[in-house]
Amino acid sequence: MLTATTVINRRDLDFLLQDWLDLGALLKRPRFLAHDMETIVTTLDLAEKIAENEIAPYLRASDTDEPFLDSDGRVVVHPDVKRAVRLIAESGLFGSVFDAELGGAQLPNVVHFATMGILMSGGVAAASFMLLTVANARLISTCGNRAQIESFALSSIAGETMGTMCMSEPDAGSSLGDIKTRAVVEADDELGRRFRLRGAKMWISAADHDITDNIIHLVLAKTPDRDGRLPEGTGGISLFIVPSVLPNGERNDVAIAGLNHKLGYRGIPNCAVNFGEGAHRPLGSDGAIGWLVGEIGQGLPQMFQMMNEARVSVGLGAAMLAYRGYLLSVLYASERKQGRRPGVRGGPPVAIVEHTDVKRMLLAQKAYAEGGLALVLYSARLLDDELTAEDEATRKSSAALLALLTPITKSWPSEMTQSSLDLAIQIHGGAGYTRDFQVEQLYRDNRLNPIHEGTTGIQANDLVGRKIRRDGGASFRILRLRVQSTIEEAIRHERLQADARSLEAAWKSLDQAVELLMLEEAETLATANATPFLFAFGHAVVGWLWLDMALLCNRRLTASPGDGELAFYSGKLQACRYFAEYELPRVNAWLAPLFARTAIFDETTVAQLFAT
Amino acid sequence: MLTATTVINRRDLDFLLQDWLDLGALLKRPRFLAHDMETIVTTLDLAEKIAENEIAPYLRASDTDEPFLDSDGRVVVHPDVKRAVRLIAESGLFGSVFDAELGGAQLPNVVHFATMGILMSGGVAAASFMLLTVANARLISTCGNRAQIESFALSSIAGETMGTMCMSEPDAGSSLGDIKTRAVVEADDELGRRFRLRGAKMWISAADHDITDNIIHLVLAKTPDRDGRLPEGTGGISLFIVPSVLPNGERNDVAIAGLNHKLGYRGIPNCAVNFGEGAHRPLGSDGAIGWLVGEIGQGLPQMFQMMNEARVSVGLGAAMLAYRGYLLSVLYASERKQGRRPGVRGGPPVAIVEHTDVKRMLLAQKAYAEGGLALVLYSARLLDDELTAEDEATRKSSAALLALLTPITKSWPSEMTQSSLDLAIQIHGGAGYTRDFQVEQLYRDNRLNPIHEGTTGIQANDLVGRKIRRDGGASFRILRLRVQSTIEEAIRHERLQADARSLEAAWKSLDQAVELLMLEEAETLATANATPFLFAFGHAVVGWLWLDMALLCNRRLTASPGDGELAFYSGKLQACRYFAEYELPRVNAWLAPLFARTAIFDETTVAQLFAT
Repeated sequence: MLTATTVINRRDLDFLLQDWLDLGALLKRPRFLAHDMETIVTTLDLAEKIAENEIAPYLRASDTDEPFLDSDGRVVVHPDVKRAVRLIAESGLFGSVFDAELGGAQLPNVVHFATMGILMSGGVAAASFMLLTVANARLISTCGNRAQIESFALSSIAGETMGTMCMSEPDAGSSLGDIKTRAVVEADDELGRRFRLRGAKMWISAADHDITDNIIHLVLAKTPDRDGRLPEGTGGISLFIVPSVLPNGERNDVAIAGLNHKLGYRGIPNCAVNFGEGAHRPLGSDGAIGWLVGEIGQGLPQMFQMMNEARVSVGLGAAMLAYRGYLLSVLYASERKQGRRPGVRGGPPVAIVEHTDVKRMLLAQKAYAEGGLALVLYSARLLDDELTAEDEATRKSSAALLALLTPITKSWPSEMTQSSLDLAIQIHGGAGYTRDFQVEQLYRDNRLNPIHEGTTGIQANDLVGRKIRRDGGASFRILRLRVQSTIEEAIRHERLQADARSLEAAWKSLDQAVELLMLEEAETLATANATPFLFAFGHAVVGWLWLDMALLCNRRLTASPGDGELAFYSGKLQACRYFAEYELPRVNAWLAPLFARTAIFDETTVAQLFAT
Repeated sequence: MLTATTVINRRDLDFLLQDWLDLGALLKRPRFLAHDMETIVTTLDLAEKIAENEIAPYLRASDTDEPFLDSDGRVVVHPDVKRAVRLIAESGLFGSVFDAELGGAQLPNVVHFATMGILMSGGVAAASFMLLTVANARLISTCGNRAQIESFALSSIAGETMGTMCMSEPDAGSSLGDIKTRAVVEADDELGRRFRLRGAKMWISAADHDITDNIIHLVLAKTPDRDGRLPEGTGGISLFIVPSVLPNGERNDVAIAGLNHKLGYRGIPNCAVNFGEGAHRPLGSDGAIGWLVGEIGQGLPQMFQMMNEARVSVGLGAAMLAYRGYLLSVLYASERKQGRRPGVRGGPPVAIVEHTDVKRMLLAQKAYAEGGLALVLYSARLLDDELTAEDEATRKSSAALLALLTPITKSWPSEMTQSSLDLAIQIHGGAGYTRDFQVEQLYRDNRLNPIHEGTTGIQANDLVGRKIRRDGGASFRILRLRVQSTIEEAIRHERLQADARSLEAAWKSLDQAVELLMLEEAETLATANATPFLFAFGHAVVGWLWLDMALLCNRRLTASPGDGELAFYSGKLQACRYFAEYELPRVNAWLAPLFARTAIFDETTVAQLFAT
């Protein structure tokens, strides 16, 4: 039964996890032996119950009453958000993916992401406290020493503390090499090498709140040389653990300088943070106390582990916003009555879901939402294979594929969800433009996703520069083989033939584009067309996943399913066909300027943009 | 000098009006003899001064503090909006397009729209009071009797009263044939045939406010037959003038039932209005008093005159939101420093306008903003030709072209501005997601434009059903000749040849699409693909206008212009090339499903959309 607080179609999630991604096979691996399908279902049920009963009903309230700074300079979040986040934390869901010996449930990543996705569908801001804390604890437990793990990861895994990632500064966002936060070594103690940090960080989500007493910051900073100069570029960046409260109970020298007032995503505070400005005097003097993680100069590579996970999580949040927007659109379109079928005069009006143009928008939303979720869960499954596949070849190829797909797993849902929610508003008409309905809030919430954790432009550069050109196309070839095998299988089925041929045409264009991008002299061309290429690549990949899912649905349909099953599987086939007919032709449009070897941007001067 | 309150590049507007649309030639027509270029410049200067000094600085305030209902049930608008709207009204700008004998300035429509566009760039909500009032007064002065014009149009033209259009009802938005507001005849008096109206209207902008004492509502209602039954469908709709205060000074029976709380566009109240619920007893009894305009049953055709003008105005507002977002993006990108040029290490960071991917986004914004404004002003020029061209053939062909272009003049800027402002936010990065910068507000403001005055889907149906299929393709052929002549001229210039060939390819696809849509049996196919066709058509038309403008710029460039001129004209050529290389390939992507003769939407059932 679809209602205004439905956060997920569990039938669909089961299909993705069990049927398509073969979770059953994954559970047979040694790491997951404590689990069977029943424990998975229990975990997903728990998340669904929290999302539906404790997050979704308060979504609007969390937007209307933003977090604020109280008179003591502490951030107060909305009481309903506070209650929901505590409930998630206390339910043990923060720990689902961690090792049992760290207090975790040792579940597969694909289950962790599915669980977090359900919560995100209820409210992406509330669920982001979990996102950040899990990524933070995962980084500490991977790169930190034993004492650091015990002091700063276990409590987060248990949901008693929460984490942040502090990278950007007012003058260094996309350009992290320019950060100015300075860490000066003070002493060695039982937690490792101790430093004093001083500097200003910007755009820090959950840097302060009243949900937990302690907040564990992971902070990028530079260590000065003997003359006090900071090293240039990213090579001089190190990573530090800076808790807001020290293990001895003293307040660290961390202060909130202000809150950012955002377009959406308002349930979670976003802060300007001052480290070491003298707000407190831990261990007797000013300067924020932080412990070095790993080695000096390794800050960025270490942070990138967290970043990559965070990027998949951002893609997940975006996919779930599209998903929820889709459910709300289906509900509204089924209830709202307006107009009549073509050629019919008089009589009662029909539900707008009957109108062809509304169906067009709904199928587009379905293709974006379910396609986006498929992309994210496919990436999560690759992470599981990278970490737990039995043979090394699979682990390696999965790692390569995940690295290649991460930029689009982050960006494709982020960008396409915005289009999808645009359609959700359009289906709601004037009502969708009011704050009486939720789609306008989802639209505002998602607009952050193409920006944070690396903008779409940054992802595009990563994809084209690092993951294709510098990789010599090796990962692309692995992907290409998988795609081709799906196409060849699908072409043998009459019902999928046309879709398979559309997909094949799109990938042949991509092959040419990649060949062109790989040319050494193509660097300028690659930079100019990185973002359009990212969109083309994302569409081609999601088109492939749709065809791959359609193959499975087509098999099920030949086995005479019941009515519900029939509707479910043929709905998937319709979405696949929509994607093939309406979306895949865009691939060539995005690639056209690359093929034309345009140099238009480099030719354009600032004076030409605004000449009076 | 570009600043945060710059609302227009006057060099650009001069280019559009004087150079490209040949305003000089227009001014030679008898209707405009009182004007020369100097009076036009004075009018535009006045609008620019008001927009820059009195509207733009208060844009954020008008969003933060929305209109509210006071304890007497009257709507109070933001004091800064009130002051700005009064200033516009008192400056005489409402009257610019009206006949001198009605107190107007008798300026061309293209000047009126340019003037209103400048105000909209300062703040679209504030300027919309003018939009509605002008459209309302124009309808009364065209269709009303002499007494109605004197009582209800002259005061609006003078800026002393304001107007609304009351069409939608809670259960009848896109489907006006279902309205239930009922008008019962009462008497004939000096203002015409007097009725009592009873019913609820929804989504009424500026239905109440404290800017003027009287508000002139134009209301669609149905007149019951002898049995009290309302006629079915749109044929039974009539149009009534319902002032909030009667000529005798009594309050009419009109009451605000509530305000809609919107995503954006908050400077102007949007209301649910009750007519005739007994809130007042004008002339001794309840029921809202209204005078019939024209004949019974002619409501919709009459209202469509106002609607068509309002649709061009909506397109104008959207284009100006893109325009202002573009100016703000150029300013931010020129000031914000981040990163270095490719291959450069160390040294100071550069302004982000230097980055290729930022230039890509800026050129896209320029192409959308200036292209959108060109489209709207071209349509306004057609309206002038329809009304004042000396030969009948030109008047007729201009009317036909305007009718054909109206759906895209409304929808193309509305939809593309949303993409354009999405890029504006992206260029601003995290800052663009905060309410400290204006682009997020422009993004919210514009989201209304694809909805009000007929959704994009409604426009698409109008374009394909009425303006192409039912027109037998006659108007399309007039347009096609103009396009072809531009292409053939451009192909002779080396610098424009590639762009001209891209445009030619796009129009050849459109020719095929129109041929297909014209087939009698293509009705279902036409319905399913009307919206993608509308986008394809819009892009092809704007691509044509860009090439047409580029031809002019190219001519000027061959005449050795000065530095500023050189930058201005070559900037236009770059935008034209951007449009040809990056945007025109989308035309084929939009048309692909039409060519594939898809039937996917009609095959899709509601059960398939959500099957558990």
